[in-house]
Amino acid sequence: MEYKPLSGREFPRFSAIKTFFRLPYVAIDADYEVGIFGIPFDGGVSYRPGARFAPAKVREVSSLGRGFHMTRQENFFEKLKVADIGDCPTVPIDMAQTYERIEKFVGEVLSHNKRFLSVGGDHSTTLPVLRALRKKYGKPLAFIHFDAHLDTYPAAWGQEYHHGAFARHAVEEGLVDPKKMVQIGIRGPLAGGDDLDFVRKHGIRVITVDDVRDVPLNDFLKTLPTFDETPTYISYDIDNLDPSCAPGTGTPVPGGLTTYEVQRIFRALKIPHLVGGDVVEISPPFDQSDITALAGLDALFEMLHLFKTK
Amino acid sequence: MEYKPLSGREFPRFSAIKTFFRLPYVAIDADYEVGIFGIPFDGGVSYRPGARFAPAKVREVSSLGRGFHMTRQENFFEKLKVADIGDCPTVPIDMAQTYERIEKFVGEVLSHNKRFLSVGGDHSTTLPVLRALRKKYGKPLAFIHFDAHLDTYPAAWGQEYHHGAFARHAVEEGLVDPKKMVQIGIRGPLAGGDDLDFVRKHGIRVITVDDVRDVPLNDFLKTLPTFDETPTYISYDIDNLDPSCAPGTGTPVPGGLTTYEVQRIFRALKIPHLVGGDVVEISPPFDQSDITALAGLDALFEMLHLFKTK
Amino acid sequence: MEYKPLSGREFPRFSAIKTFFRLPYVAIDADYEVGIFGIPFDGGVSYRPGARFAPAKVREVSSLGRGFHMTRQENFFEKLKVADIGDCPTVPIDMAQTYERIEKFVGEVLSHNKRFLSVGGDHSTTLPVLRALRKKYGKPLAFIHFDAHLDTYPAAWGQEYHHGAFARHAVEEGLVDPKKMVQIGIRGPLAGGDDLDFVRKHGIRVITVDDVRDVPLNDFLKTLPTFDETPTYISYDIDNLDPSCAPGTGTPVPGGLTTYEVQRIFRALKIPHLVGGDVVEISPPFDQSDITALAGLDALFEMLHLFKTK
Amino acid sequence: MEYKPLSGREFPRFSAIKTFFRLPYVAIDADYEVGIFGIPFDGGVSYRPGARFAPAKVREVSSLGRGFHMTRQENFFEKLKVADIGDCPTVPIDMAQTYERIEKFVGEVLSHNKRFLSVGGDHSTTLPVLRALRKKYGKPLAFIHFDAHLDTYPAAWGQEYHHGAFARHAVEEGLVDPKKMVQIGIRGPLAGGDDLDFVRKHGIRVITVDDVRDVPLNDFLKTLPTFDETPTYISYDIDNLDPSCAPGTGTPVPGGLTTYEVQRIFRALKIPHLVGGDVVEISPPFDQSDITALAGLDALFEMLHLFKTK
Amino acid sequence: MEYKPLSGREFPRFSAIKTFFRLPYVAIDADYEVGIFGIPFDGGVSYRPGARFAPAKVREVSSLGRGFHMTRQENFFEKLKVADIGDCPTVPIDMAQTYERIEKFVGEVLSHNKRFLSVGGDHSTTLPVLRALRKKYGKPLAFIHFDAHLDTYPAAWGQEYHHGAFARHAVEEGLVDPKKMVQIGIRGPLAGGDDLDFVRKHGIRVITVDDVRDVPLNDFLKTLPTFDETPTYISYDIDNLDPSCAPGTGTPVPGGLTTYEVQRIFRALKIPHLVGGDVVEISPPFDQSDITALAGLDALFEMLHLFKTK
Amino acid sequence: MEYKPLSGREFPRFSAIKTFFRLPYVAIDADYEVGIFGIPFDGGVSYRPGARFAPAKVREVSSLGRGFHMTRQENFFEKLKVADIGDCPTVPIDMAQTYERIEKFVGEVLSHNKRFLSVGGDHSTTLPVLRALRKKYGKPLAFIHFDAHLDTYPAAWGQEYHHGAFARHAVEEGLVDPKKMVQIGIRGPLAGGDDLDFVRKHGIRVITVDDVRDVPLNDFLKTLPTFDETPTYISYDIDNLDPSCAPGTGTPVPGGLTTYEVQRIFRALKIPHLVGGDVVEISPPFDQSDITALAGLDALFEMLHLFKTK
Repeated sequence: MEYKPLSGREFPRFSAIKTFFRLPYVAIDADYEVGIFGIPFDGGVSYRPGARFAPAKVREVSSLGRGFHMTRQENFFEKLKVADIGDCPTVPIDMAQTYERIEKFVGEVLSHNKRFLSVGGDHSTTLPVLRALRKKYGKPLAFIHFDAHLDTYPAAWGQEYHHGAFARHAVEEGLVDPKKMVQIGIRGPLAGGDDLDFVRKHGIRVITVDDVRDVPLNDFLKTLPTFDETPTYISYDIDNLDPSCAPGTGTPVPGGLTTYEVQRIFRALKIPHLVGGDVVEISPPFDQSDITALAGLDALFEMLHLFKTK
Repeated sequence: MEYKPLSGREFPRFSAIKTFFRLPYVAIDADYEVGIFGIPFDGGVSYRPGARFAPAKVREVSSLGRGFHMTRQENFFEKLKVADIGDCPTVPIDMAQTYERIEKFVGEVLSHNKRFLSVGGDHSTTLPVLRALRKKYGKPLAFIHFDAHLDTYPAAWGQEYHHGAFARHAVEEGLVDPKKMVQIGIRGPLAGGDDLDFVRKHGIRVITVDDVRDVPLNDFLKTLPTFDETPTYISYDIDNLDPSCAPGTGTPVPGGLTTYEVQRIFRALKIPHLVGGDVVEISPPFDQSDITALAGLDALFEMLHLFKTK
Repeated sequence: MEYKPLSGREFPRFSAIKTFFRLPYVAIDADYEVGIFGIPFDGGVSYRPGARFAPAKVREVSSLGRGFHMTRQENFFEKLKVADIGDCPTVPIDMAQTYERIEKFVGEVLSHNKRFLSVGGDHSTTLPVLRALRKKYGKPLAFIHFDAHLDTYPAAWGQEYHHGAFARHAVEEGLVDPKKMVQIGIRGPLAGGDDLDFVRKHGIRVITVDDVRDVPLNDFLKTLPTFDETPTYISYDIDNLDPSCAPGTGTPVPGGLTTYEVQRIFRALKIPHLVGGDVVEISPPFDQSDITALAGLDALFEMLHLFKTK
Repeated sequence: MEYKPLSGREFPRFSAIKTFFRLPYVAIDADYEVGIFGIPFDGGVSYRPGARFAPAKVREVSSLGRGFHMTRQENFFEKLKVADIGDCPTVPIDMAQTYERIEKFVGEVLSHNKRFLSVGGDHSTTLPVLRALRKKYGKPLAFIHFDAHLDTYPAAWGQEYHHGAFARHAVEEGLVDPKKMVQIGIRGPLAGGDDLDFVRKHGIRVITVDDVRDVPLNDFLKTLPTFDETPTYISYDIDNLDPSCAPGTGTPVPGGLTTYEVQRIFRALKIPHLVGGDVVEISPPFDQSDITALAGLDALFEMLHLFKTK
Repeated sequence: MEYKPLSGREFPRFSAIKTFFRLPYVAIDADYEVGIFGIPFDGGVSYRPGARFAPAKVREVSSLGRGFHMTRQENFFEKLKVADIGDCPTVPIDMAQTYERIEKFVGEVLSHNKRFLSVGGDHSTTLPVLRALRKKYGKPLAFIHFDAHLDTYPAAWGQEYHHGAFARHAVEEGLVDPKKMVQIGIRGPLAGGDDLDFVRKHGIRVITVDDVRDVPLNDFLKTLPTFDETPTYISYDIDNLDPSCAPGTGTPVPGGLTTYEVQRIFRALKIPHLVGGDVVEISPPFDQSDITALAGLDALFEMLHLFKTK
Repeated sequence: MEYKPLSGREFPRFSAIKTFFRLPYVAIDADYEVGIFGIPFDGGVSYRPGARFAPAKVREVSSLGRGFHMTRQENFFEKLKVADIGDCPTVPIDMAQTYERIEKFVGEVLSHNKRFLSVGGDHSTTLPVLRALRKKYGKPLAFIHFDAHLDTYPAAWGQEYHHGAFARHAVEEGLVDPKKMVQIGIRGPLAGGDDLDFVRKHGIRVITVDDVRDVPLNDFLKTLPTFDETPTYISYDIDNLDPSCAPGTGTPVPGGLTTYEVQRIFRALKIPHLVGGDVVEISPPFDQSDITALAGLDALFEMLHLFKTK
């Protein structure tokens, strides 16, 4: 099995069955090294749903993807075997059961010693992914979290688990190490002043949009945290971006990052041991000309390059 | 308190706080006779979500509504006191708890001896409404069900309750009387041949689009069932309409009814004892120029005229 | 000067400067016989504006127009000299002055003994057109009025003139003869029961959608009124059509006519002396895939064939 | 290999890799009986392009498809082995080479003695399909052609081959038998009176929209032509439908058929020897809420049932 | 009466009657301190209309608003009593009368010694607001004006008052003090070189986009003018933003500010005596995914924090 | 003949026949100095088509254009005679013949010693324009190329000529001088590492987005290349912009330039001998609220000011 994207110069990019980056669609236990899969679920969202359609849409726009990273001067698809391994089973109308299925699916991916990227889904789907990783690696992960929101919020409508609470649970359940956790793109308004209590108490580093822009970008990039050999996970909520770059998302917040700033942040991150990542909260029904999906694809592409060859 | 729509000739229709038909927004125990409320919930939907935004959108387009029914030659708002009583509480991410809140809310409306119309929400929300009505009236209801789908389907993804199974549960729980039940607008394809077993077994009358169109419309209207003094409920799934008339819905099916046919059906129905009704499955994110919402509003307006003055 | 549409088989339909039907754009006093012009004004509209963009949009979609009428078996552009004579001057923010400019412009067209079609604009623009025609012809016109609404409504917000009152003024000012007037496509709801007083009092014939559909279409067509040598004008409000056919309009009403029914009505009308006509209330910002504009273009095309060669 | 659609009750319809009807994606020489493939090409279109995206979009919406035909009371997927065999290779910017590749691809499908349905693509793509069929079957085909346009038009811009000329070439090249050919949905306007010369000369039966509607639908259906054992092909141009049903197409024409009428026509056709068919001219960039794609899917589903078990 | 936004953690943000920030809707003479109201009028606009729908749309998206300002570390809604006081009466088709009604309405708000924010409406609506303020405070106001355009333009189409002339009239009528006036976001092209004569002659400070970006943002912010105890008004035309951030506006101009820059400007302004402000020129029919409305809401939120507690 | 834009203060901007900048539409041999024309062709595009509609759309939005350049403090339309000279003939379905017609049309423009700007069309249309210029001027041109892509790519689908290869052909055919060529806005990803071989080999200067942003903008502008008296051409592919600024294009790439940066680059360029330019790859069917078309218009306006008075 050759793990190469279908060439756009041979097969027009609008043709063919849609898989992530036009890569082969293989079984979960095939001999790929990095698997990309979808988690089509938006049952944890508080405002605009639609993220259930994101895996299909990102597959579609990934037809536009190319393989050679101009800054890194390398073709990742020639370095590691990457494949589309389909969609994780979900129950569209039940979060608890969806959580079980996600944890099981990711557990199986990990049981084959694979690394992975997923396309959500709303942000509530990240929690069971982290649970599976925690089990696999036996200790809390280092965690890079792009978002407009802290996602450390309390229960809503009497429900503990929703897309604005996953990060709190991840810390409270010991899935991630708050000392090795950074949140990027955060901005207000918040629901209340106590929204920041959690991150302060746990010592989580919060990088706001102001932090990114108060100095020239190249200077800011030097202040990014460094990571050690701790297994590290990246969760990329598309709403870290400004609504002009990512209109198609569940809870957009003006004053966000640009796709360019995010590209530069990804390129500046040094992560010795990335084990997985996700792109979440793309809502195609609210997107325009697929620019949000394209921004998500771009993040996926950048993240891919953070995986090390073994 | 005067229960009159705000006049469009005094206050432009695009202005003012949006309530159903520009009626007063009053408390659940005020002295209105027919209450209109929203049930913003789409957690039971199998394909396109978005119905959570329907109550807000129907309120908005109802600014275009007028009060005098040209065929009936009467202004319903001068006959009965109609009011907007707000939205039923829901839990966007939990169906079981939402069911409880709906049943409780409708129960409270009924405890004040009110009749009502609601704007869903996906079709799963009709079940708890029927449960509350069953309790109130102490016997199964007569039931008029507009839909492209039978909604008598089995569990999906291991879940008993979803927007395609509410009618089955309504029958099985004894909430409605299958002998006094009619389904209008039904058409294929179906998932399987056994999809019809349920309606056959229970003797539910199914009126397909073919049935409506095989004879001139006026002739068809004469074949509509008659209703007796049994408390009667109407559930109007917007997808009974053709996608050209109602693109903004969760699971559109080509070959459906037109808004005109539906108007004529509503005007031909004789219902001595209507106790409530709903319009469900309008999904504004998938609508175009609000025509689906307008079609839903029109059904709401027609249904209103089926309530008797006491 | 040759009055022929630019051929789509020579010049692709998406190319070239946009004029109505790709006809020559000529001066108001050129030697054409039927002039088509725009009246870009929507200052009289009560709900959705945007008709100001209709002349430009109808010009654009008229690139798709073809010249040979399949039912009539004739090419109108070979029978009469038709031309685009540009847009009537308007004052976007002042109705009274716009009325003056419209009346003056139409007066000038008529002073050259031309017949014409115009593309509005909201329906308030028809009144000054009728005033100019009344002056020219010295007597009230016969009047065919396609619309969902009667447009005989009273003042709104203290204003006499608005898009829902033009027909009342036309009658009251003696511009049209109510005995030779027919309104087609009318349907409810109305604001009040007295909305019908005006048409009853003046004996205006109202053809509702029910009237059109209560018998087979071919039978209905035989009941259309006949017209005599009285100068006759047609005003075609696109909202006579159902929202599925014409979503892009100011005040859509479900349950309307189809484009097919309207084609058949136009083909059945016998008008010995048509002097002008208009298509109004197309609002491109609310249109979808230009289908409303295309429906308006189609009406324009049908109307054109009602002009007699002299 | 089991040729069964993925169940929507097990795997949510918005999940999984998108294939036609969620069927298996297999090689061209696998043991399926009816293959469905895409022809993503819009290089022959005269106005709105975009049909290149139709195969991907129809695959996506076919997730909504169900298998049991309510009128026919059968599940076609249980009768014949149907599969997605991917997309035919095309050259997006060269029609001549695309023609070669289409003819070769279809030839290969036929060499394995398969029957097939394809999703275009603009209507120019039907010609090479017919060429391959003519070669295979050694004689002209019977031909059912749904369209607003005759597609028998002369060269445009000096080019013989374009999406409005394929039917003329099919007749002139002897690919189809004009005596066994019917065109359904035709309506004007035409470019010129001589547009009808070709069909008259060749005795092709033209069924206009008027023909369909001049009598009750059930009566019309009895007048449909019958077909003999001649290998028969169906080409379904989505623009036979009214723009309200199919806004997303290259050259929409008001006054078209409804999806319901088309369903009934398909169900009334008796075709002893259907060898293939296509759905063409769906342009997703101009579609609204995917209703055009859904209408195309519906036609695909109906056509499928016209294949006989051997 | 408690002036607190409805909590999104109790009542889902997509539910409930839509008021600004989910605040109580109260009478004009209630005991609130800052009233927010709509001015739904777009009769003064020169290109794209639609701002009449802005108050309703901003109310809708304000459901997404939260209350705690992350930079200021305060919850404004806990400091001052803020309420929705409905919409100012307007006459959609008459500017002069609308001016009277606006001036009267604002006069009444001021008669109760309230401060306020309004959501227009096109920019022509700011003039009568300033007239009412001038009367109340007895002297010209200090004036902060965000805009792409100077709005000091001469009459158009013979009309003195339109959305591009309000600032000129405000100066000429002595409503604002040009020496205490600043225009932010200005950029070309202009209609003519003399467009700048007015601001030069009156010594109005004009801050162009170049001015904002020629130095690092933090440095620019230090150059903002300071304000004294003069009653100060802010008029925020959404088209000061770049079309990527605010596509839904009447006359967009490329090369504009970003929402982030505007946030920083608002946070840097020191205004001892803010008496009112507005957000104008949001045109929902031209918006995409509500990002323009969200940007307007964000400006509203920032402006709110500039009101002092007394 | 007066070459002045129609005034927006006399004739509302939404009215009148649409020409570029509301300039007169004149014959190719009239006495204008700079001609603007359309090249409606998208037959060379690899992904999203639609650029065939760009000339019509840019004409439409150019109604919003104004004439006085605020930074340059001059009204170009008063300095040089600018006119709309219509659209170049194209063959929508044949690239080779379209190339011939473009070269012939541009040749004729040049034969009258005119300078020009064109609105494409996809980027494949620039090649025949350069061929005509090369013939006219007898030597390779200096060439400024804005783009996300290098467009020096090899054949695709066996075809030499497509929208991603024009720059390679321009160099290989000696139409432009690679030493006097600069590409601005370039960014990855690329198809392969060898994509850069061509520009390296020919010594073409490539300015990436990183290059533009690694220093303050004013510093970057000083590093722009200078041009000598060599006839110079500018080709502006709208996809050099970020998708947030230009969603409506054929192959969008995140991380692009902003309209503001491009304005500043245009204003900083010193070009003694500009002979022509184009704006290409605007695809209106994929645009949102016309912001891409507006960005293209803005580039057209800036380019116009680079023409010298003779």
